[in-house]
Amino acid sequence: MSKLFCITDDPISVEEVVQLVSRREAGAINTFIGTVREFTYGKRTLHLEYQTYRSMAEKKLEQLGVEIEERWPEAKTAIVHRVGRLDIEDVAVVIAVSTPHRADSYEASRYAIERIKEMVPIWKKEHWEDGDAWIGDQTETNPYPEGAPQKEDLK
Amino acid sequence: MSKLFCITDDPISVEEVVQLVSRREAGAINTFIGTVREFTYGKRTLHLEYQTYRSMAEKKLEQLGVEIEERWPEAKTAIVHRVGRLDIEDVAVVIAVSTPHRADSYEASRYAIERIKEMVPIWKKEHWEDGDAWIGDQTETNPYPEGAPQKEDLK
Repeated sequence: MSKLFCITDDPISVEEVVQLVSRREAGAINTFIGTVREFTYGKRTLHLEYQTYRSMAEKKLEQLGVEIEERWPEAKTAIVHRVGRLDIEDVAVVIAVSTPHRADSYEASRYAIERIKEMVPIWKKEHWEDGDAWIGDQTETNPYPEGAPQKEDLK
Repeated sequence: MSKLFCITDDPISVEEVVQLVSRREAGAINTFIGTVREFTYGKRTLHLEYQTYRSMAEKKLEQLGVEIEERWPEAKTAIVHRVGRLDIEDVAVVIAVSTPHRADSYEASRYAIERIKEMVPIWKKEHWEDGDAWIGDQTETNPYPEGAPQKEDLK
């Protein structure tokens, strides 16, 4: 793994993503790891399936990297998002942000995860115990099934 | 590594600390990694040396775990702090907090690092290019050399 912003089909190594941003100027690295949770408000998930429009998603992640650099010029960011079938406890996304001082690493990391959910074309299919549903993006509070992928979007 | 709160002389594996808090109930894991920075406000560090009163430090880390549990009952926390000589870019501390939803993981992780610097007896000796100095705690803004370790504190 050497690209700072990428989509992968394989399990993500947190350590490798951290290595991408580790550097002599940094005193702080914040990482956010999104994992597959079994229960969401009492409803049981069996597994998830992420699909994406890959080239667009990586472009959007890079664009997010630029946004972060504009806001936190001393930050270095890496984001890896996994797609395909994920089981409970699997890692879906890892964000790592290194900065000289810690406050910035928290803020930029938080910004990154919120923006990923807003702007990156990744769709999640929840396989519940009692059926399944496409969740348009990954937001928990505002799922919009109308955002589900069209066949031509999935590459 | 199996203890949730510990002091170690060895390099810290971020992946292992994350594993300690990974679980089916979690959808989010925030980690904070404190690393040795080369330059602090223009002053160059060659390496650092951390010393601790080990049993007391581990007790304090466990106490911090209880504080976090009181504030974020759904959080699971692990904290590993390294002591001894650390070179530039080495990892000094890893905090991992897993929670069902992401906002709590950020907040609890941030709380943890601030409290570590306030309450855990770990002293840092900065070996600068032009000399060295004990920093009473690890805060960057309020070093208090009078907090430097006494011989009998270091075990």
